[in-house]
Amino acid sequence: MLWIPIDRSLDIPLNRQIYQKLREKILSGDLQSGERLPSTRELSSALAVSRNVILEAYDQLLAEGFLDSRRGAGTFVAKETFLQQHKDPSAFLTLNSIEKSIKEDHIINFRSGIPALDLFPRKAWSKLSHRIWNDIAPSNFGYDIPEGRLELRQALSRYLQRTRGVDCHPEQIVITSGATQALTLVAKLLLSPNDIALIEDPITDDIQSIFKASGSTLYPIPVDECGMRTSLLPEGTRPKFIFVTPSHQFPIGGTLPIQRRIQLINYARKNDCYLVEDDYDSEFRYEGSPVSSLQGLDPAHVLYIGSFSKILSPALRIGYLILPIHLIEKCRKLKWFSDLHTPSFDQLILAQFITEGYLERHIAKMKKFYKNQRDYLIHCLTTTFSTNIHILGFSTGLHLIAELNDVQFSQELLKKIEQFGVKVYPVEDHSIEKGKHHHRIILGYGHLTKEDIEKGVFKLHQALYSTNST
Amino acid sequence: MLWIPIDRSLDIPLNRQIYQKLREKILSGDLQSGERLPSTRELSSALAVSRNVILEAYDQLLAEGFLDSRRGAGTFVAKETFLQQHKDPSAFLTLNSIEKSIKEDHIINFRSGIPALDLFPRKAWSKLSHRIWNDIAPSNFGYDIPEGRLELRQALSRYLQRTRGVDCHPEQIVITSGATQALTLVAKLLLSPNDIALIEDPITDDIQSIFKASGSTLYPIPVDECGMRTSLLPEGTRPKFIFVTPSHQFPIGGTLPIQRRIQLINYARKNDCYLVEDDYDSEFRYEGSPVSSLQGLDPAHVLYIGSFSKILSPALRIGYLILPIHLIEKCRKLKWFSDLHTPSFDQLILAQFITEGYLERHIAKMKKFYKNQRDYLIHCLTTTFSTNIHILGFSTGLHLIAELNDVQFSQELLKKIEQFGVKVYPVEDHSIEKGKHHHRIILGYGHLTKEDIEKGVFKLHQALYSTNST
Repeated sequence: MLWIPIDRSLDIPLNRQIYQKLREKILSGDLQSGERLPSTRELSSALAVSRNVILEAYDQLLAEGFLDSRRGAGTFVAKETFLQQHKDPSAFLTLNSIEKSIKEDHIINFRSGIPALDLFPRKAWSKLSHRIWNDIAPSNFGYDIPEGRLELRQALSRYLQRTRGVDCHPEQIVITSGATQALTLVAKLLLSPNDIALIEDPITDDIQSIFKASGSTLYPIPVDECGMRTSLLPEGTRPKFIFVTPSHQFPIGGTLPIQRRIQLINYARKNDCYLVEDDYDSEFRYEGSPVSSLQGLDPAHVLYIGSFSKILSPALRIGYLILPIHLIEKCRKLKWFSDLHTPSFDQLILAQFITEGYLERHIAKMKKFYKNQRDYLIHCLTTTFSTNIHILGFSTGLHLIAELNDVQFSQELLKKIEQFGVKVYPVEDHSIEKGKHHHRIILGYGHLTKEDIEKGVFKLHQALYSTNST
Repeated sequence: MLWIPIDRSLDIPLNRQIYQKLREKILSGDLQSGERLPSTRELSSALAVSRNVILEAYDQLLAEGFLDSRRGAGTFVAKETFLQQHKDPSAFLTLNSIEKSIKEDHIINFRSGIPALDLFPRKAWSKLSHRIWNDIAPSNFGYDIPEGRLELRQALSRYLQRTRGVDCHPEQIVITSGATQALTLVAKLLLSPNDIALIEDPITDDIQSIFKASGSTLYPIPVDECGMRTSLLPEGTRPKFIFVTPSHQFPIGGTLPIQRRIQLINYARKNDCYLVEDDYDSEFRYEGSPVSSLQGLDPAHVLYIGSFSKILSPALRIGYLILPIHLIEKCRKLKWFSDLHTPSFDQLILAQFITEGYLERHIAKMKKFYKNQRDYLIHCLTTTFSTNIHILGFSTGLHLIAELNDVQFSQELLKKIEQFGVKVYPVEDHSIEKGKHHHRIILGYGHLTKEDIEKGVFKLHQALYSTNST
């Protein structure tokens, strides 16, 4: 008689247990094609379960093709139900080792671009979220349009007009899953293999990877303390676009003056190419207001990318792309075939967050907070390193650049610094033409406590100028 | 004297208004390079605003490079600040017309794949959401890992093992922004230009577009009422993968029997290719339990795609991709360069929703509801069309197929049906080899009321068999 072990302590229903065991036996060849199964009555009495349990298991196996039922003759294992077993038990051992979480608890990490996570406006967000979940019409739970919620696009276009001089209609906006998706959409919109894009050098390495993935060539334009050196824009290269971070060059930190902005626009007009403006953290400008966008100077030539990762939280994954009119339709299609649309509910919450004035109050509060952090970091750096250090790119955002003319931040030195309990990021990692920035590091300060900043600077100094390690 | 109109009724600060007006005048050439600006004292008295207001406006313009300040000599318009104006005022007229919303209020829409939106479990979701927003540690507001939250991957792997026979470690899962993103990741993982993928025919047109976008060729394998006709798998084509919807073929609706599943796996083993299993709505199987996954039969050869769009809400945009071990790292990188990761908070809420048992209760409730809808639709169709109609693919999911052998669903006829107030979807729209499915339509029923179902079927019959239109 067919023996099937069943376990009444499991939360798997008995019919499901029997189904699974029979299925395994058939697939592995323990029960072979043509073999007759016991009747439901026999099996139910042998296993001491109700006959319905067996009936349900047999029905499922019949429906899936494992069994054949011949009227009057009984139930048989169907043909072609044997599968050679192929499992590799060692594979999962590898996986368990992947699962290790890299613990960096004791490291003071000067990673750039992380906001002060403990100051996320939870209360307001949670209140608006509660309202959305309870009040919105059921239709909002369905598929949405690729460009994102009109409520958010309207709120954004008003907000950006007022604070950033961005000149756009809500229909020119596509809400994206963070700035990263906006960058991939730009690559798909504008780049084909062997195309050329002009790009600031140095520039975030992730951005280089995204653009290069399309098979195009990046032509580096060096930056100085004022951003891209537009006088070096080449003649005759026919680029598809020029990528710039004019409000706060990443990483060097400059703000592009109006003369260079005008040169960029005249170049784009003359060479019939676009400007891609990545405005990732310009809300936090500590001397005066944020600089007006490049986009506002010539909306027909500029694609503008913004993000809520720095001003709210990276975990939200909400960004946006503002497009010249004739690129809108193509971009919506690309977004649709990427992920249909960005999740609706966070968009609705964010739209409320902006229109009810929470965003601007939050930014004002954070600007004060970050200015304080920045001033404290500069104070620690200058008192610790005195004349050895030159600090740049500190007018805006969540990071600054420290330049130490007598130091080369080699891999070896960076490892030593980490052994002292500090993680810093070399500008060289983001450079295209290598070898020019070995003496510069990026110090992000938005997410650190004052205590960490002070300790971090102290340890960095120790690591650099002590004669023996740790 | 320089005249700057200011408007105290606006909520734009006065210094910002003056900054903007001066900026415009400089860019447009109204104020020319080298021209001397009035002193801050003169201008403040002329405009009757405080001197600080003017100072702030001048400082901003100095910082952005619009002005030069020469000690003792005063403030001047800087060089190279003129920009030829290029605006096209007619462009926005076009946009306003885009904004029209397509109103289909009076149409009964049998679109497939839309769940009953008014039965979304708002209360439970809202409660869990409130808890997450208030309780989680600040670190959760930062950047996350591309594969998604471990909490969700753990909950999913347990849930899928139990309910779908999916055999995976949490490390094999990548959480995606809906199944669409999982499909684009599969295309990027496995397809290069000129590669071949075998695919069911007919199959969702969006899926065809996503795979074809990689420059590869789709080789259609016809389906019958039991899914892909695996006996027609070609020899010698060296495909990269075979795409199947074995639990519930879309659109025809068949469930792939075990014999064909084994054929698929043996084919993949022999031809060293993958199987891509899209399991979009198999939770709702009305006869017995959901059919066990193809993935569980051979995890090393199957990429499994799932989604919460049908069982919860498409607006959430949460899906997942389960990968053979050696594809995991590459897929994580591709996800990172697409959008870094799927938003964290909805993942955390969903993980709780699964582990606290809400999901399975919701599915059980919805299965009853949809079965009822389905039975009512079948009842209406058979009583209205009697022997003219053949209904197939109704064992699972949110749609079925109606076959009317005496009808050809041409574009003209579809338009006529819409004039009668009903929208139906021809299978032919999803076919690769054209011309075989003109007599078949897809009828989605998950989101409709019983009243709509009854009225919709009645009107469809009217449209098909009345002699004159409307």
